[in-house]
Amino acid sequence: MPDTSPAKWHLAHTTWFFETLVLLPHAPGYRAVDERWMRLFNSYYEALGPRHPRPQRGLLSRPSTADVLGYRAGVDAALLHFIAEADHDSFDAAAGLIELGLQHEQQHQELLLTDVLHAFSLNPLLPALHSQPAQRPAVSAGSGWTRHGGGLAAVGTASGVGFAFDNETPRHQVVLQPHALARGLVTNGEFRDFIADSGYRRPALWLSEGWSSVQSQGWSAPLYWQLQEDGQPVSEFGLHGLQPWQAEAAVCHLSFFEAAAYAEWAGARLPTEFEWEAAATQADPPDDLFGSVWQWTRSSYDPYPGFRPHTGAVAEYNGKFMVGQIVLRGSSLATPPGHARKSYRNFFPPGARWQFSGLRLARDL
Amino acid sequence: MPDTSPAKWHLAHTTWFFETLVLLPHAPGYRAVDERWMRLFNSYYEALGPRHPRPQRGLLSRPSTADVLGYRAGVDAALLHFIAEADHDSFDAAAGLIELGLQHEQQHQELLLTDVLHAFSLNPLLPALHSQPAQRPAVSAGSGWTRHGGGLAAVGTASGVGFAFDNETPRHQVVLQPHALARGLVTNGEFRDFIADSGYRRPALWLSEGWSSVQSQGWSAPLYWQLQEDGQPVSEFGLHGLQPWQAEAAVCHLSFFEAAAYAEWAGARLPTEFEWEAAATQADPPDDLFGSVWQWTRSSYDPYPGFRPHTGAVAEYNGKFMVGQIVLRGSSLATPPGHARKSYRNFFPPGARWQFSGLRLARDL
Amino acid sequence: MPDTSPAKWHLAHTTWFFETLVLLPHAPGYRAVDERWMRLFNSYYEALGPRHPRPQRGLLSRPSTADVLGYRAGVDAALLHFIAEADHDSFDAAAGLIELGLQHEQQHQELLLTDVLHAFSLNPLLPALHSQPAQRPAVSAGSGWTRHGGGLAAVGTASGVGFAFDNETPRHQVVLQPHALARGLVTNGEFRDFIADSGYRRPALWLSEGWSSVQSQGWSAPLYWQLQEDGQPVSEFGLHGLQPWQAEAAVCHLSFFEAAAYAEWAGARLPTEFEWEAAATQADPPDDLFGSVWQWTRSSYDPYPGFRPHTGAVAEYNGKFMVGQIVLRGSSLATPPGHARKSYRNFFPPGARWQFSGLRLARDL
Amino acid sequence: MPDTSPAKWHLAHTTWFFETLVLLPHAPGYRAVDERWMRLFNSYYEALGPRHPRPQRGLLSRPSTADVLGYRAGVDAALLHFIAEADHDSFDAAAGLIELGLQHEQQHQELLLTDVLHAFSLNPLLPALHSQPAQRPAVSAGSGWTRHGGGLAAVGTASGVGFAFDNETPRHQVVLQPHALARGLVTNGEFRDFIADSGYRRPALWLSEGWSSVQSQGWSAPLYWQLQEDGQPVSEFGLHGLQPWQAEAAVCHLSFFEAAAYAEWAGARLPTEFEWEAAATQADPPDDLFGSVWQWTRSSYDPYPGFRPHTGAVAEYNGKFMVGQIVLRGSSLATPPGHARKSYRNFFPPGARWQFSGLRLARDL
Repeated sequence: MPDTSPAKWHLAHTTWFFETLVLLPHAPGYRAVDERWMRLFNSYYEALGPRHPRPQRGLLSRPSTADVLGYRAGVDAALLHFIAEADHDSFDAAAGLIELGLQHEQQHQELLLTDVLHAFSLNPLLPALHSQPAQRPAVSAGSGWTRHGGGLAAVGTASGVGFAFDNETPRHQVVLQPHALARGLVTNGEFRDFIADSGYRRPALWLSEGWSSVQSQGWSAPLYWQLQEDGQPVSEFGLHGLQPWQAEAAVCHLSFFEAAAYAEWAGARLPTEFEWEAAATQADPPDDLFGSVWQWTRSSYDPYPGFRPHTGAVAEYNGKFMVGQIVLRGSSLATPPGHARKSYRNFFPPGARWQFSGLRLARDL
Repeated sequence: MPDTSPAKWHLAHTTWFFETLVLLPHAPGYRAVDERWMRLFNSYYEALGPRHPRPQRGLLSRPSTADVLGYRAGVDAALLHFIAEADHDSFDAAAGLIELGLQHEQQHQELLLTDVLHAFSLNPLLPALHSQPAQRPAVSAGSGWTRHGGGLAAVGTASGVGFAFDNETPRHQVVLQPHALARGLVTNGEFRDFIADSGYRRPALWLSEGWSSVQSQGWSAPLYWQLQEDGQPVSEFGLHGLQPWQAEAAVCHLSFFEAAAYAEWAGARLPTEFEWEAAATQADPPDDLFGSVWQWTRSSYDPYPGFRPHTGAVAEYNGKFMVGQIVLRGSSLATPPGHARKSYRNFFPPGARWQFSGLRLARDL
Repeated sequence: MPDTSPAKWHLAHTTWFFETLVLLPHAPGYRAVDERWMRLFNSYYEALGPRHPRPQRGLLSRPSTADVLGYRAGVDAALLHFIAEADHDSFDAAAGLIELGLQHEQQHQELLLTDVLHAFSLNPLLPALHSQPAQRPAVSAGSGWTRHGGGLAAVGTASGVGFAFDNETPRHQVVLQPHALARGLVTNGEFRDFIADSGYRRPALWLSEGWSSVQSQGWSAPLYWQLQEDGQPVSEFGLHGLQPWQAEAAVCHLSFFEAAAYAEWAGARLPTEFEWEAAATQADPPDDLFGSVWQWTRSSYDPYPGFRPHTGAVAEYNGKFMVGQIVLRGSSLATPPGHARKSYRNFFPPGARWQFSGLRLARDL
Repeated sequence: MPDTSPAKWHLAHTTWFFETLVLLPHAPGYRAVDERWMRLFNSYYEALGPRHPRPQRGLLSRPSTADVLGYRAGVDAALLHFIAEADHDSFDAAAGLIELGLQHEQQHQELLLTDVLHAFSLNPLLPALHSQPAQRPAVSAGSGWTRHGGGLAAVGTASGVGFAFDNETPRHQVVLQPHALARGLVTNGEFRDFIADSGYRRPALWLSEGWSSVQSQGWSAPLYWQLQEDGQPVSEFGLHGLQPWQAEAAVCHLSFFEAAAYAEWAGARLPTEFEWEAAATQADPPDDLFGSVWQWTRSSYDPYPGFRPHTGAVAEYNGKFMVGQIVLRGSSLATPPGHARKSYRNFFPPGARWQFSGLRLARDL
């Protein structure tokens, strides 16, 4: 799939980030391991020169995995050396980029898993990344709704209160209408009911572009479900390989289109990203906000009022993707510990299914 | 182009709307002119049965134009008869749909012009739709900015205060930040400066998907400009045929991507749809809000809080397109008189260039 | 479909041929009706300047049909005048091109019918070009095989013995192996048996690219057959509209791939173009060689040894298409009277189905 | 590129061939190493069950290279054991398939090189497969032409005279016209002259589909040439990495379209495959028939009269590709020793450039 990258590329690209944005500009005397790798492992920074096209990343049999691991080791050592030895001013100049590089690497840790999972899913051998028995995270039995009376709410992260990506800033106020959010995530069992009720065959439930995708892609279940001939789900492919389908697990690997159609069918809707954020900050928040599945919202990925990108080469980090994408909130089982935040704005195109993406319902009051 | 339709189809489709949604359900004894035309002239109403695919509309040499005009005459007569003769209850049941049918037809009056213009632009003969000398609407010389101090603003249309599409409702409050809107529209001359300053060759000015479009589509100027070999604009194609390029005219036939890149280059940004609506309602509004060019905003086309689609078959009118589109505000020279409103939300994909679309700048205060 | 053209275009293009290749170079004082039409109605002559792309021909609402008919009338008159008044040398120089123009127009007479039929077939109204009752030409009841003992055979047309296209020359000798050709054409009824015997579902019967087409295009019957739910053919669309399916009619609107798969299923093969030509010239030829359906051969469209294209601008007439195409022999019900020849080489890509194309079987002896 | 496969796949597929076609049906007690690999490593044998799609072969990170090498070792051992221990009848039944398997593996040895070369050419690092200095095979200085007086010639291989693929049989007679073949291959230097004379910009030299490819693919030189800014060739990429361009080397990595355009420009033509075979068998044959570059012919890849495919599962070996392909004759520097034959028919689509393909001129006498 053109949206995914090989594991080796993820390893090299996150290394490249530190080399190009921290070491080369800030570490005195540092020389690039291989100038030609600059282009190979640049992902999307137009300001940093030509890039190797993503769909061709899979062809890169050179440099070898061993070479890339050596590259990582070298850059790691140089970075540690820089941190240990840098004078105060140099460190100050680089500190924000080092922090960004760590957050960036955490993002790729999750992407590496989703991309490997997708490649494995296309391999008839259905290999398992993790050999130990699967432990799909338990989803809370929490049912019912948590209510919000509406009114002004502050969202986003203010500057100077810990790390945040530029797209989470500035902190600002929004108006919320009275609404309720489901305590729990939608489960596999609930989604099976949607399928059994012809959910994938009723255009009235779908956004127009979603209905086109259903037809052109032949969608009839979440991405990694395997169905029996009678249509009953029997197993689900994941990082632990093919595992028995569990009704109580949070439904996962849905596109935004499927999440929205499910919500329509359920007589509800998706929450806006601000409703989600407000719920996450209230005294009695919904369950499983983090650590199970990313939750599609009904918010397009637009810039916040007063949005200013990161400065320098990393200005391209987020802002230039702010069109045609949908915000997901929370985090997933594949998100590295410590990476999640209440103000975090993940985003993917509405047809993307290979992320650990599910949903939580909302409704107007 | 797959997004456009032939003039004959527009004529038939707007007729079909009245026949299918007003006459057949509400006019006693009315019989369809030709059952088979139901499918031919349905545009996107899944609830009303199978449709003829849009890219094949150009192949419909039958029914002939004369047949379609006869169809229109027959439906017009039946509709007038129904209005004249209907009892109170019948009329009440149909009145909203008649109003919607009229508004729908006005929308297609504009689309018919944009589609004919596009087809003519691909004809090497460059035919003119209107033979009389061109009269590009004068753009106000208004310069400077109109300021807004921020705070709560009410947007949208409340029920019961005149016609509005479902996507403009409900009326609700939003928070605005302090900002200013340009009094005037961006002109051809200003956009020429953007081109001369390598606007189409600097990726840093563009959204990522916009930059891809520049490269894959070879964009180097607004859609209907003709350039000399030295890159200077010399003429512009329009409804009056090929006309001399005018520096003072509002720039037109831009995609959202081009509008956003121009704003970035100008050190400004596009207004949100709510900033636009607030400016339109203030005591001293900007110039040329209506009647020149539709103005791209920096707002994705998302549903308003509490949005409820029109009921019945026309539920599909707007809501199902609420993903992947950008809101345009105002109206254009091709918009029928009386069709424009301050709360009107037009919408197109960000790459669309064949509409009469331009921009107005905004900036933070 | 990108391979077809509107009727108006065929009318204009055949007129353009006479204007550009006969009148402009040979008729003193002749001036082009409209210089801009040169480009519009050029089909594929690179030597004669830029062309309007074929897939956009359908968009040409200008010039109107009336204008094109006027163009034809003017060129016809000028051509007749030239023929009447030209001195001997001028006429001699132009005579070959006039003949070629007439043959060219006959080719387009057939293409106009196949293209209209295809456009009509995509119109849910299924219009009929001819209103009178259908008269599918009777196919001879001739059964059995006509045998050929093999050996040297002369094929092609020698110069100076009547009109022939360049691709039929030079006349030359080929070696034939002993073989037999079916007296009759394969019929609808016989092809139904192929379908009933899972012909479209058995990859072993198909060429690899043909099998890909079956799957990607969803082929399950000849192009214009309509099947009942149980798979039985019930009607066939043609120039007379939708007509009852006739078992005895020659099967038509097959691709080369389908013809070859049928032959494989029947334990036979397609004839080579030279076997066909030899059979057409023998004392007791097979039936329906001409006037029913073009017959796919097992011969790729390669140049004859010593092939020389027509000279001048018409050099592009045939030679440059000699790759990736398959030869068909004979003629069809839509071929103008007098246009067919035993040495005639028609050619289309192996996946083409919109021509009046069927088959005759052959086998080795 | 969808037409190429990873090296690991070639290794596994050639192993699979022996396992599936020799060991499983003929070696008593042999059990498949892994049943699931049947599907993964089947290339195009529909009769042998479902296949893994070629464009996805690059995604197969499992089984690992080590697993595949183990698979090869196991199958090799089992095959040697079978050969040593089989009784006379068993061996007789399998001998033809073993021979075919060896020939098949030799074909993939060459494909593995062409595919690796292509993947490396897309890698900005331009890795070299062979580290030692390049030794482009010297091309004979042989100039001039070798003549053939025309008449009957026998081509193809008769049964019982050594191994041949089914597509080379049966041996049969053809008629040749008087003609001459160039003694030497077309060289880089000669092809540079074609480029310098605007060869890639003159549509009259090209087949229509070739001209389309020039424009859509942006061809301006052979596949692996690197040009200076002034258009002069400076280096050529190959199995030894990037090497200085040599005027005297045989031009290589041409499509059929480029070969045919060059021949047209040179006032000559490509030989037919039978002219080539006749020249190879005459007393004084042209130079470099084998071992330098495959030579495009002007012959479509059609079946020989009386062609019968290999029997059984290997019936699909050649016959089903006999449409839309062009015959190449000879062999290349990458062809394994002993694999070439005078009657050998290699074939590729006319646009293929990643093979070691060049040309030799012919002309009529």
